[in-house]
Amino acid sequence: MALTDIEIARAAKKRPIQEIGEKLGIGSDDLLPYGHDKAKVSQTFINGTKSKENGKLILVTAINPTPAGEGKTTTTVGLGDGLNAIGKKAMVCIREASLGPNFGMKGGAAGGGYAQVVPMEEMNLHFTGDFHAITSAHSLLSAMIDNHIYWGNELEIDIRRVVWRRVVDMNDRALRQITASLGGVANGFPREAGFDITVASEVMACLCLANDLDDLQKRLGDMIVAYRRDRSPVYCRDIKADGAMTVLLKDAMQPNLVQTLENNPAFVHGGPFANIAHGCNSVIATTTALKLADYVVTEAGFGADLGAEKFMNIKCRKAGLAPDCVVLVATVRAMKMNGGVAKADLGAENVEAVKAGCANLGRHIGNVKSFGVPVVVAINHFTGDTEAEVQAVQEFVAAQGSEAIISRHWADGSKGSEALARRVAEIADAGMANFAPLYADDMPLFQKIETIAKRIYHADEVLADKKIRDQLKAWEDQGYGNLPVCMAKTQYSFSTDPNLRGAPTGHSVPIREVRLSAGAGFVVVVCGDIMTMPGLPRVPSAEKIGLNEAGEVEGLF
Amino acid sequence: MALTDIEIARAAKKRPIQEIGEKLGIGSDDLLPYGHDKAKVSQTFINGTKSKENGKLILVTAINPTPAGEGKTTTTVGLGDGLNAIGKKAMVCIREASLGPNFGMKGGAAGGGYAQVVPMEEMNLHFTGDFHAITSAHSLLSAMIDNHIYWGNELEIDIRRVVWRRVVDMNDRALRQITASLGGVANGFPREAGFDITVASEVMACLCLANDLDDLQKRLGDMIVAYRRDRSPVYCRDIKADGAMTVLLKDAMQPNLVQTLENNPAFVHGGPFANIAHGCNSVIATTTALKLADYVVTEAGFGADLGAEKFMNIKCRKAGLAPDCVVLVATVRAMKMNGGVAKADLGAENVEAVKAGCANLGRHIGNVKSFGVPVVVAINHFTGDTEAEVQAVQEFVAAQGSEAIISRHWADGSKGSEALARRVAEIADAGMANFAPLYADDMPLFQKIETIAKRIYHADEVLADKKIRDQLKAWEDQGYGNLPVCMAKTQYSFSTDPNLRGAPTGHSVPIREVRLSAGAGFVVVVCGDIMTMPGLPRVPSAEKIGLNEAGEVEGLF
Repeated sequence: MALTDIEIARAAKKRPIQEIGEKLGIGSDDLLPYGHDKAKVSQTFINGTKSKENGKLILVTAINPTPAGEGKTTTTVGLGDGLNAIGKKAMVCIREASLGPNFGMKGGAAGGGYAQVVPMEEMNLHFTGDFHAITSAHSLLSAMIDNHIYWGNELEIDIRRVVWRRVVDMNDRALRQITASLGGVANGFPREAGFDITVASEVMACLCLANDLDDLQKRLGDMIVAYRRDRSPVYCRDIKADGAMTVLLKDAMQPNLVQTLENNPAFVHGGPFANIAHGCNSVIATTTALKLADYVVTEAGFGADLGAEKFMNIKCRKAGLAPDCVVLVATVRAMKMNGGVAKADLGAENVEAVKAGCANLGRHIGNVKSFGVPVVVAINHFTGDTEAEVQAVQEFVAAQGSEAIISRHWADGSKGSEALARRVAEIADAGMANFAPLYADDMPLFQKIETIAKRIYHADEVLADKKIRDQLKAWEDQGYGNLPVCMAKTQYSFSTDPNLRGAPTGHSVPIREVRLSAGAGFVVVVCGDIMTMPGLPRVPSAEKIGLNEAGEVEGLF
Repeated sequence: MALTDIEIARAAKKRPIQEIGEKLGIGSDDLLPYGHDKAKVSQTFINGTKSKENGKLILVTAINPTPAGEGKTTTTVGLGDGLNAIGKKAMVCIREASLGPNFGMKGGAAGGGYAQVVPMEEMNLHFTGDFHAITSAHSLLSAMIDNHIYWGNELEIDIRRVVWRRVVDMNDRALRQITASLGGVANGFPREAGFDITVASEVMACLCLANDLDDLQKRLGDMIVAYRRDRSPVYCRDIKADGAMTVLLKDAMQPNLVQTLENNPAFVHGGPFANIAHGCNSVIATTTALKLADYVVTEAGFGADLGAEKFMNIKCRKAGLAPDCVVLVATVRAMKMNGGVAKADLGAENVEAVKAGCANLGRHIGNVKSFGVPVVVAINHFTGDTEAEVQAVQEFVAAQGSEAIISRHWADGSKGSEALARRVAEIADAGMANFAPLYADDMPLFQKIETIAKRIYHADEVLADKKIRDQLKAWEDQGYGNLPVCMAKTQYSFSTDPNLRGAPTGHSVPIREVRLSAGAGFVVVVCGDIMTMPGLPRVPSAEKIGLNEAGEVEGLF
């Protein structure tokens, strides 16, 4: 019987983290250890790398997710190991996991099979405390806003217009909407409030987009926390919380070094929501990795319509990055689901369904190419995939002028991903990329939304009522017109209807709401229901989680 | 000009934490580093020490605090260094600081002058994440309770009788009293709720009293979270949260090793409230330290009437500990304040006021002796103290059959505390202690309260209405009668009136409320206003906190 992910992870022969750091030229003084297998890289060391040349940047993204699973993180890790196996100096950059959701459904492994990052348990628990620091910084600002109102409200905040919500890293639906400051004079002025989960905090988005601590403090100061009766904004800087928040975040800002099962280095750092934020690991992790390795493999959230689009239009734009190659992950099973097969029937060979489902893949290929970046499709191999099915995908991709390479990293680690790694390295080395974001900074906000809707989603139109258009106009007048937009829509379809698989056309994109993240530096465009505080299911996985007699964590995976 | 605490701390020549561990016989595999100057001790190592003999246990406590300051932690650290300086193998055990309050008033140093524990900044920030883990574990249970109600409430929890509040490690008065689960069906059943600060969590008290992870899980499971309409209790165990909470706490349960300015080992671990909880560092830190060192110097919260009493009657009782010597910290300045001098006038010599103020000290000496433990008074020396004033204290103490030794650790480090250290070691070595708690387990709860009120506070009577007496009786019927009581009263007086200094008699102790901490294992007796969620002041210190150009934290101290 095959081993489970957790069994494989526990059997890993981890090397001391200092040894992993040495591979990257990081001395032990510049590595702040957290246990024997995790460490943060010092700011001093990072500063010292600025003059080095950048390595090649490889983005791993995917088709629209289906319940069949794609294995985007698994492929990211597998490709990193594959590159190392063929003699390249490569490293991986991925996101940190949120704590709360692990107690609802099963925890998310960092990869799977023989393509994982370890220590897996700790990455699903407190890890190096980054998210706790973000919760603390966010909570401090929350407390200071209400404290300001309590002591006389000199800034004249309209308590009906406090837009800064609170956060907790737990799935707690009871806190979504509350009335705060009840109980009399000593507790302040009663007002409506609510909590989001920590990954939805704008502090998280700021940290993940900041170049350094100074830039972080500036971004935090720029965040809008409330409005006055005359609708003028009150900033975090006005509350004087930005300095103390930066102090709380000073360690969280440093990238976390861990290792793959094959003892190759990986940064796991930051984890903003992929809907109301940009869904990528931190800029500081990616830019630092590019100085330390010749190839950096990173990933973006959800499918390429959301994840890759935001990676290109938000992260790369803000950090001055340009990907050299994009790897688009697909699976035969997901193609079948896109082709209309139910999850229960995925076991049976069905070449026709695979062919039908390839439409989704084809559109993502075209979309990514429109950014001027070459694309390789990685077919993340599952045991049941048949030769004919794999061939159908490969033929389809070839017809699009790209190439689909089968990768068996899940079963075989780097041995299984060497072919993919060779081809990706060739493409990256060839300098074929001619990257440009999809729209210019100075394009009006609504037009930016239309550009994404039409060119990425292939929709006919964007629907927005006057109130929304006026709001966008008002932000342009206030000097926010040069920001990129951050689309929050379903991850399951190019459209805003999660059930519309494949490559739909002729649809409309209705905007329900727009929000300004002035510190992170983007305008969030909400299309449909977006949940920023999940709930727990009827039987939360927490009920089964515990320590076994060996002191190991059970039930988390 | 004298250096500030933070300047002294920053100039410290810290040794790598592995070297500090070596002094205690802890190999680097058994030390989980957090940076280069903090580490947790592995459970494996702790298990391996069980058969060793215990060292001597020395409790540092104090007179009732005055605004003049006593320097209890400073004396604890100074005495630890003094013992090491005279060739003894000694270590210090103190509490961790709470994060939230640092952003209101100035942060608390761990000691002061040349008697400090370092790294000071980190101990006032996230440290090793213990308090964040406690917040997470507490929050998980909170979410699971409301989730249980949401999905059908099989346990028949009366939503008006959910006694489990939420916590956050921040001074946030707006969260003291809230209405939760608003916003419609998807968010649950609206009910009143509220937040305390993390140190007030019963999870904290459980962690600090638990012997190991099994014991911790049992205590967590025993916590009462709500009552049904028939008043029967619903336990954490019924919610099935105890396993996952233990997983979240598995690292937080391990003691944190740091060092004094003189590179001597110190455990800094746990920090329960000193009013609604017992106010001592963790049992696991103290019991482990006793296996590793010949002398362990630890402290308890507030003055001896609360701190030492709870240390003896709660911590020692539950952990099977017995102190060998008690050091009672007093200052000439505090004696003067107890003698009626205003803070502004403390600079002038006033021997008569010192003599008058000694009544408070005298009563504490008598109280501690009533536990069967020998007492040494440490006069924590301040620069302005005159010879005549010091002599007045010494003569008073001698007349009580004890000894007062001047200690200059604040100015001179271990050189200043050697005399105190020699005497304390002599007393501890002499085996003069014959410790017994003040009351037996099987004494009825109300009688336990009366015993403390009469024998420690020297009050005439305890006032409690029928409802409170009935509640205590009901708990006795439910099997909780054998628990110790945990008094929550003002720290500034033997009485419940904070303005009544000195050694009052003839007063009454009115009980306002009693609470059952069934997991921690005590009955909290609330006498007066007890605040479990502080607020921020008009100008919070957070406004001044920030990073300077060297990347150092400014404004926290």
